[in-house]
Amino acid sequence: VKLANKYLMPLITRGTGTGKAGGAIPDKNGVVVSLERMNRILNIDPINRTITVEPGVILSDLQEAIGKEGLWYPVDPASADWCTIGGNVACNAGGPRALKYGVTGDYVLGLKGVYGDGTFFQLGGKLLKDVAGYDLKRLLIGSEGTLGIITSITLKLLPPPPPEQVIWCGFDCISDGIDFLIAVLSQNIQPTAAEFMPGVCLKAVESYQKTVFPFSHHAAHLLLVLDARYQLDYSILPSCHRVQFDNPEALWAIRRDISESLTHVSISKCSEDITVPVSQLPALMRGLQRLTDQSDYVCLGYGHLGDGNVHVNVLNTDQPIEKWQIDQPYLVERIIKLGISLGGTLSGEHGIGLTKKPYMPLYFSERDITIMKGIKAQFDPNHILNPSKVFD
Amino acid sequence: VKLANKYLMPLITRGTGTGKAGGAIPDKNGVVVSLERMNRILNIDPINRTITVEPGVILSDLQEAIGKEGLWYPVDPASADWCTIGGNVACNAGGPRALKYGVTGDYVLGLKGVYGDGTFFQLGGKLLKDVAGYDLKRLLIGSEGTLGIITSITLKLLPPPPPEQVIWCGFDCISDGIDFLIAVLSQNIQPTAAEFMPGVCLKAVESYQKTVFPFSHHAAHLLLVLDARYQLDYSILPSCHRVQFDNPEALWAIRRDISESLTHVSISKCSEDITVPVSQLPALMRGLQRLTDQSDYVCLGYGHLGDGNVHVNVLNTDQPIEKWQIDQPYLVERIIKLGISLGGTLSGEHGIGLTKKPYMPLYFSERDITIMKGIKAQFDPNHILNPSKVFD
Repeated sequence: VKLANKYLMPLITRGTGTGKAGGAIPDKNGVVVSLERMNRILNIDPINRTITVEPGVILSDLQEAIGKEGLWYPVDPASADWCTIGGNVACNAGGPRALKYGVTGDYVLGLKGVYGDGTFFQLGGKLLKDVAGYDLKRLLIGSEGTLGIITSITLKLLPPPPPEQVIWCGFDCISDGIDFLIAVLSQNIQPTAAEFMPGVCLKAVESYQKTVFPFSHHAAHLLLVLDARYQLDYSILPSCHRVQFDNPEALWAIRRDISESLTHVSISKCSEDITVPVSQLPALMRGLQRLTDQSDYVCLGYGHLGDGNVHVNVLNTDQPIEKWQIDQPYLVERIIKLGISLGGTLSGEHGIGLTKKPYMPLYFSERDITIMKGIKAQFDPNHILNPSKVFD
Repeated sequence: VKLANKYLMPLITRGTGTGKAGGAIPDKNGVVVSLERMNRILNIDPINRTITVEPGVILSDLQEAIGKEGLWYPVDPASADWCTIGGNVACNAGGPRALKYGVTGDYVLGLKGVYGDGTFFQLGGKLLKDVAGYDLKRLLIGSEGTLGIITSITLKLLPPPPPEQVIWCGFDCISDGIDFLIAVLSQNIQPTAAEFMPGVCLKAVESYQKTVFPFSHHAAHLLLVLDARYQLDYSILPSCHRVQFDNPEALWAIRRDISESLTHVSISKCSEDITVPVSQLPALMRGLQRLTDQSDYVCLGYGHLGDGNVHVNVLNTDQPIEKWQIDQPYLVERIIKLGISLGGTLSGEHGIGLTKKPYMPLYFSERDITIMKGIKAQFDPNHILNPSKVFD
């Protein structure tokens, strides 16, 4: 890093490159710093309930290692089998269980690495509480490789979760499903996960998995995970069809395969991850339907709707790729503006990277962005680290 | 704030002044900006499970208001009846339930206010996930009034907690109690609170409350709160004396009265709140005993030991105040160095303010502090806001 500063050579830190916003793509000159082989588990500490790892550890390898010790890490994005912890920290990754258990940043107790000028840092440690000074650790989390290169991460772990129930419900229309979800969230319970899927998602997964689900005829689906102690009141929506099943893992496999399946039923697609207050989900879903009706594409909202985080996929099923390339940025801007008009944000878990950079001024004031650039200059005075990402 | 910038007049933002580190004290020229009367509850939103308040709302008023709606806010410092939410956010306040439920910052979804230069900001909202740009909201939390003045706070709320059990245990010596606590934390359970009190704390409360507790003869005490579903295994320490009681609220009153009671049994005292990894609690408590033996004062560790956050009170029971004033800074420095040598931090929940400012270089590198000062300059270019706090 010191050499890079001397020669003003950009460094683009990269894990396994699973990011959805292009944050790890070397779009200009520079050197990619791959941390894939910094993949050692340095320490598992059952008394302090922590694990310390290098950034290249694959999330599912970490989950397996702590499972053997009777410990648990709740952050579980769909890419768990191939994403790295370093990437999770760089993007503050979420996933379905964020609804109850929070996101990556809520579990990071300590970070070591180097700032943009090459000086070493060590922030936090095996400490559950730390309010000394400004929260530089939290600032590095989600900074997408623009402030420092992280070389060691200490995470807080939990004991295994209480017994859970998995529930799958089908609905006759999308708005029935959204109404049911909001009614569930208004009850005196805290769901662990609440994943919403319009019927077209299941049709795509059926085709991708070469199978047929007996419940795929419903227009919308909700996968709910609740502590076993909760008793759900189904009378809140008579048109909720409870689906019986044997294997909850197969249901999760449906949910996890949606993103990949949708690429097989479209010529091209893009994935946004706006987040809105849950009370605005009905308006958001109506707005997406309106965009579908008014455009030549399908604007599909699915995913972690329980925490308001909607994966809006824009699918191109029949338009020439040249037309898509022209239309796509306008559609994305309309989707993001729709989310922001409902009190939402650009990104719930994917980050800004390259693809959402143009939309930053829609959410932040000029002063906010000036402050962010000023912060970047403190950590990385020569703009060495991932210089073309998050903002220009 | 714009006027203050024009005349380079410092502004010291203040709630009810309950801070333990002097962060709200106007130690130099300047104007105190009291937010005590900005105490309106602006909005309670049961669907999004949020409350939006002005910063001067007293925490217990907030707790009462949301209780009526069947909602719950877990952060509950001992000063709940007189501290303000704004102060909680400014210091990232903790409290006993932080062990399971986290601290203030984990519940702040949105902030509005003005930066140090007088420009308005609005960060976040009723959003459970938001990873757009750098986390300026999180940077403001715990910044002790040095970066902005917060005028509106949106907090995440929870449904009421599951049924809980309250357990009080007595021990024949401090190290037995600490060993038991660590054994509890090593079981497959997540305690809600684990408050540790050497016997001298109870003696002080007895004198302050003018009462006698039948269990106060024990050398150490542990107040545990657990979900009712957990079954504690007492065989982990035979010399644990389970105390029977009728009224758990009276036990909490003991815990809450300790700080005040100790002022009545000493000529002078000071309160630190270092945090260490829980595995280092035995070494920390031994170190405090050593300091007591080697000095003319009592170095007493009590409080939220379950999350490693130890309220170290230094009590002066018989020395002239002039001697205390000379000795006290040296003792505090030894206590903080002891904590840091065990992998700990200066402050778990009180903040740095004025009193811990000299010790910042013991925990942070020169480069860390330079970055923090650079960040301060982005938010508050003329050093108007609380300019003599956190660092010089």
